[in-house]
Amino acid sequence: MSIRIGILGYGNLGRGVECAVKQNDDMELAAVFTRRNPASLKILSENVPVYSINDILNYKDAIDVLILCGGSATDLPKQTPEYAKYFHVIDSFDTHAKIPAHFANVDQAAKASGKIGIISVGWDPGMFSLSRVYADAILPDGSDYTFWGRGVSQGHSDAIRRIEGVLDARQYTIPVPSSLEAVRNGETPELSTREKHTRECFVVAAEGADLPKIETEIKEMPNYFADYDTTVHFISQEELDKNHSGIPHGGFVIRNGKTGWEKEHTHTIEYSLRLDSNPEFTACVLTAYARAAYRMGREGMCGCKTVLDVAPAYLCRQSNDQLRQHML
Amino acid sequence: MSIRIGILGYGNLGRGVECAVKQNDDMELAAVFTRRNPASLKILSENVPVYSINDILNYKDAIDVLILCGGSATDLPKQTPEYAKYFHVIDSFDTHAKIPAHFANVDQAAKASGKIGIISVGWDPGMFSLSRVYADAILPDGSDYTFWGRGVSQGHSDAIRRIEGVLDARQYTIPVPSSLEAVRNGETPELSTREKHTRECFVVAAEGADLPKIETEIKEMPNYFADYDTTVHFISQEELDKNHSGIPHGGFVIRNGKTGWEKEHTHTIEYSLRLDSNPEFTACVLTAYARAAYRMGREGMCGCKTVLDVAPAYLCRQSNDQLRQHML
Repeated sequence: MSIRIGILGYGNLGRGVECAVKQNDDMELAAVFTRRNPASLKILSENVPVYSINDILNYKDAIDVLILCGGSATDLPKQTPEYAKYFHVIDSFDTHAKIPAHFANVDQAAKASGKIGIISVGWDPGMFSLSRVYADAILPDGSDYTFWGRGVSQGHSDAIRRIEGVLDARQYTIPVPSSLEAVRNGETPELSTREKHTRECFVVAAEGADLPKIETEIKEMPNYFADYDTTVHFISQEELDKNHSGIPHGGFVIRNGKTGWEKEHTHTIEYSLRLDSNPEFTACVLTAYARAAYRMGREGMCGCKTVLDVAPAYLCRQSNDQLRQHML
Repeated sequence: MSIRIGILGYGNLGRGVECAVKQNDDMELAAVFTRRNPASLKILSENVPVYSINDILNYKDAIDVLILCGGSATDLPKQTPEYAKYFHVIDSFDTHAKIPAHFANVDQAAKASGKIGIISVGWDPGMFSLSRVYADAILPDGSDYTFWGRGVSQGHSDAIRRIEGVLDARQYTIPVPSSLEAVRNGETPELSTREKHTRECFVVAAEGADLPKIETEIKEMPNYFADYDTTVHFISQEELDKNHSGIPHGGFVIRNGKTGWEKEHTHTIEYSLRLDSNPEFTACVLTAYARAAYRMGREGMCGCKTVLDVAPAYLCRQSNDQLRQHML
């Protein structure tokens, strides 16, 4: 029997989950739920119904796991605790500072309903968190580093688009090669924000816009750009569409640690991702954790979990026997 | 209260565990057990007793977790099921083909005693297995590759030392750079044994030994060398001791997978290790899993586990709240 997946929210992430479910033959997409008019939404799958979010409780028994594909700013803080009352739920909540509060809300709802809610699933938080935790547990005497990129930051791109005279923009976050290299070589430098990443911006300006003023506004924008070495390129909309329409991302988690009675040995653990599509990869992680939620639920577990609480075997379509025979 | 660790077997791995325990301030080394005469064994720690393995059952209540540091060929198949009757146990059993049988034996003993036994802990099997399993679960439509090295293979070094006229030897396993590069670039080639690794041997020959004959014997040795491009260097014992006395190792686990409705996107997940000391790193992994065994045991779990069955949070000295606040 397939695991019946529901998707709530059909943007890039929701569409990514739709694609991921198709690749997992122990799953089926049961329904997509939307705040839009369901009749207006065209999805990739044939023969999968689209329903209004207002009717979602009618489908409680038709969905094994509901994957929440909304945003962390306003959608997930409400939706995840709300729907954990009725479904096993998975979200990609990524506001690091607010994870403890979100966890508490989801935990309360999920414990009351007997459901599983797995939050902050994706690659950071998510796979990068796992890498940091494993490496820290193994090499307690060490330093770890996370570099992001080369990849598109949606938040920074949006910030540029809000500047007067800007029609469109794409911002890439890029690790500083010399810092990345030093860390990879086992060094443990103290790195400032500026020494870790640079920012490269491709901007489409309105005709007659004041380009030097836009460039200055970008480079001096607090939090987003002021602490970084930033490069700004003005290009045409055609060029942006042609060369910068993808949503690639990735990064590196590296820990260097010492062992030995006199700390005489150095070890480097590195985990890296190179992703053609940030939302599709995040969707793949969400989908694997949907399988885990389903299995943990069947074993009678409930409450809120993060990737740190989920034993890896739960993620796999293979049985534990198969995993031990072929994957260990 | 500290987790009281016992070490059984005091070779390179046992000494590595001794060093690792010192780095974890929630643990203490309670005792070392040996098959040798305990009075003859000098360990690094002061004020830690060394006992004969024959007396180990006298210390059942003084040890929380027993870390078994023997070999996979003859020690662990007997020791792990035997001592799982009395202790939470951790081993680094690495004969991949025999893991299912070993698991069954340890599971039976540990379920009967109510103890936890975590087997096949280290980096391969161990952290590399975890990387393969996570990556496979996330990108089901993909191919994965494991490259080992550059590092010393103890088994291959021993095989060379058994050849007539050889006094000492050290063998390095080395990934083929062009293959590693292709896989890192997202390609999914079919690679033969020869295309994945080369073998480099440093050999000290007896005076007057027939060097060309030794070289041929090495290169044609079935299983060990015949399927590889092998280089042999004859050097002096002094040079071997000076430049090849370390036990470095490492390697790469890489998975390339496709996502998207038409499989239009490619993703690369890479996990790599660069280790100054193979046994000390393995010991660090064993020690982290000793913490997990202790905690899982306190929660009432029992039976045999592998790294695939252990939720990452159990490995960490931090509380779950701290992990969510700082590591997620």
